[in-house]
Amino acid sequence: MKQLLIKTEQHCQFINIDRQVQQVVREANIVSGVCYVFAPHTTAAVTINENADPDVVRDIIRVLEKLVPWGADYAHTEGNAAAHAKAAILGPSETLLVQEGRLVLGSWQSIYFCEFDGPRSRRILVDVRAGG
Amino acid sequence: MKQLLIKTEQHCQFINIDRQVQQVVREANIVSGVCYVFAPHTTAAVTINENADPDVVRDIIRVLEKLVPWGADYAHTEGNAAAHAKAAILGPSETLLVQEGRLVLGSWQSIYFCEFDGPRSRRILVDVRAGG
Amino acid sequence: MKQLLIKTEQHCQFINIDRQVQQVVREANIVSGVCYVFAPHTTAAVTINENADPDVVRDIIRVLEKLVPWGADYAHTEGNAAAHAKAAILGPSETLLVQEGRLVLGSWQSIYFCEFDGPRSRRILVDVRAGG
Repeated sequence: MKQLLIKTEQHCQFINIDRQVQQVVREANIVSGVCYVFAPHTTAAVTINENADPDVVRDIIRVLEKLVPWGADYAHTEGNAAAHAKAAILGPSETLLVQEGRLVLGSWQSIYFCEFDGPRSRRILVDVRAGG
Repeated sequence: MKQLLIKTEQHCQFINIDRQVQQVVREANIVSGVCYVFAPHTTAAVTINENADPDVVRDIIRVLEKLVPWGADYAHTEGNAAAHAKAAILGPSETLLVQEGRLVLGSWQSIYFCEFDGPRSRRILVDVRAGG
Repeated sequence: MKQLLIKTEQHCQFINIDRQVQQVVREANIVSGVCYVFAPHTTAAVTINENADPDVVRDIIRVLEKLVPWGADYAHTEGNAAAHAKAAILGPSETLLVQEGRLVLGSWQSIYFCEFDGPRSRRILVDVRAGG
């Protein structure tokens, strides 16, 4: 299991982590297997979506903000209940297949770390298993 | 890893893929393991929900359309930003357990490929692993 | 594969299942591996979120109820279409890593069984695999 460290720079931000996850897969030196990408946080998530037009992830961020407005009336007194709800909706992890030593992704797919309460220092756990 | 090819026929459509996924599990010829179902697309998803009343998936499609309206104001100029957001909300994959050579599903559960920008030709990747 | 049996007590309720899942991991007696937590139901889900302030999961329950109101106009005649849609949004399972014989979770993360149509008797499947 490897740990990636990233610093997010905005309050809500999707960061493409393909390169770092692919690096962990490469170092695992397996032909075929499974790659687990897990965010050990409760106000962040991991998702897979389009990498070509950066407007796509911007639109997804805006859709989520409209569905779960930051300033709505929440019980949680820390003020970041919306970030927790967005994290639950997208989920903390993705499971990817590995073939011929590389992540299996569609042509337009990239892996994103989703920050919903930044900027912060964050960790991402990546585990690659030949048997998985 | 096997690839299923399907043609969707509607703009938004959930297609039951139990039979095809179970076929891949059968061909893998394992007793116990894990089955990964992954959509390598950014405007489609994989989910698990009720198979008895087709109104259930119709309702889920309508709920998602209400939450993320196709015609709202998005930055992405291709016009299908809503499909990307719906795909992110449901997610591109499901992980299932295999026991006694069969998928483990609840009585009412089926696996659905979720089209959000059809009709299109789509691929679904299915990987079955004894160790997983 | 182990089966946990729980009784939910409210219509919508998130139940922390860390202790029971950790117990299954302990009994598996492995050092490193993967733990699959799967709800074989179509009106319930599994998620991971904050364990410190119970208001967080209450807020998430309220956010989901606002997004998918129980009493809206649905086609499904059983009356619980909203529960199916909420289950699809959060998803039926989570995949966790195991290291040194323990679940890998962030400081604030717990695993929750999410009831959306209770009270009911429910099952949760937990599978721990060294190779996974």
